[in-house]
Amino acid sequence: MSAPVPSYGKVYLIGAGPGAQDLITLRGARLLQQADVVLHDALVTPEMLELCPQAEKISVGKRSGQRSTAQQAINAQLVECASRYALVVRLKGGDPMLFGRADEELRALEEAGIEVEVVPGITTAVAAAAATKQPLTKRGVSRSVAFFTSSTAPEHPADVDMPDSDTLVQYMGGREAIITAQRLLEQGRLPDTPVVVIENVSRADQRILRLTLDTLAHGLEPTHGPVLVMLGHAMARRPHQAAD
Amino acid sequence: MSAPVPSYGKVYLIGAGPGAQDLITLRGARLLQQADVVLHDALVTPEMLELCPQAEKISVGKRSGQRSTAQQAINAQLVECASRYALVVRLKGGDPMLFGRADEELRALEEAGIEVEVVPGITTAVAAAAATKQPLTKRGVSRSVAFFTSSTAPEHPADVDMPDSDTLVQYMGGREAIITAQRLLEQGRLPDTPVVVIENVSRADQRILRLTLDTLAHGLEPTHGPVLVMLGHAMARRPHQAAD
Repeated sequence: MSAPVPSYGKVYLIGAGPGAQDLITLRGARLLQQADVVLHDALVTPEMLELCPQAEKISVGKRSGQRSTAQQAINAQLVECASRYALVVRLKGGDPMLFGRADEELRALEEAGIEVEVVPGITTAVAAAAATKQPLTKRGVSRSVAFFTSSTAPEHPADVDMPDSDTLVQYMGGREAIITAQRLLEQGRLPDTPVVVIENVSRADQRILRLTLDTLAHGLEPTHGPVLVMLGHAMARRPHQAAD
Repeated sequence: MSAPVPSYGKVYLIGAGPGAQDLITLRGARLLQQADVVLHDALVTPEMLELCPQAEKISVGKRSGQRSTAQQAINAQLVECASRYALVVRLKGGDPMLFGRADEELRALEEAGIEVEVVPGITTAVAAAAATKQPLTKRGVSRSVAFFTSSTAPEHPADVDMPDSDTLVQYMGGREAIITAQRLLEQGRLPDTPVVVIENVSRADQRILRLTLDTLAHGLEPTHGPVLVMLGHAMARRPHQAAD
């Protein structure tokens, strides 16, 4: 006799966007309203979770200073939730497919034979461009943009993996951005290249700092929330641009 | 006597996302529902415009084979609309700050003293990653991603401006992607690097092609709608991944 075939619900990997409740997509919001259970990161804001009062909520995220749930444990929890519930939402800050470890969760779900769908979200760089009114590309000036993070793993020193592009956006920038700036100056980028640092994009405590590559290379005042660093000529302020 | 000061409405640059009606943000949808007038690109789908039955709609977009409204004329039209209406929406496919000529429109509006706000949208690359279930970054494998377009301007040959990044995404790819692939092979990228070509992302006629860098360098079957090309090791299929 063969073992009974487990019957699973469906899992949605949903991007919550940068934090403001109304920057999730209509599709994401509707699925949240129908969800049986929502597994969310620490970066997902409380106001976003107000969209799913009916759902069981499980926090699986990590945040500096707090203990993180290891990725393998999250994968197991997702599979377990799909065995108990019909509509499982895995809610991630930003977009799940950009620096979101989606590969690992997709693998685990697919291996268990669970149906999964991905709903895109506003990634932080795009939200930061909107909030600061600085386009990431600019005709004739900045025709490409690259997103990257710095690894803290010893086998991947920060200076090895930096992409080359007209506009550069460093996710989870913080203090690593100082090293990035030093590297870019060594590579010949101009010291007066404009830099925008943005903390807690789209939230009530959003903070925008405008620097140059040279000043960033010499230090960055302390930041608290998630930090995004954007640099390149597309970050230059326009003549009649309003103050931030 | 001084001339009367013109009184203007407010202009919102809104990203419509890739096309599906429910992939706009809640904020974008609510503003569309309140808009007096909507100036939209040809890439904005008819179903998206169903969100604003009350608004006057003005098509200002270009599409291959159709006449485009020159950017300066669009700028003038935006200013003119803001002098007549309280809530003006400029609706763009994808996100306004990525390959959207936002800089030119922001300059024109700011110069006229018109208040403007930007509402981010799901950019095509992120929607394509969701639709194909291929993350754009992958821990330990692909730690950066760059978005670019090929210029057809003679002073910017396609091969000069290609960014360097683990994952590469070419917007408005089409036939230019063949040149990109040839260039990347010359630069030493492996011939079996996986490539995903996606046409009409998120729409009913969405089409996904899976190739390698080598096969792409030898040609691409004809495409009709907007085409996005994603390449790099993050595009490798997973062992239990469902068919597209």
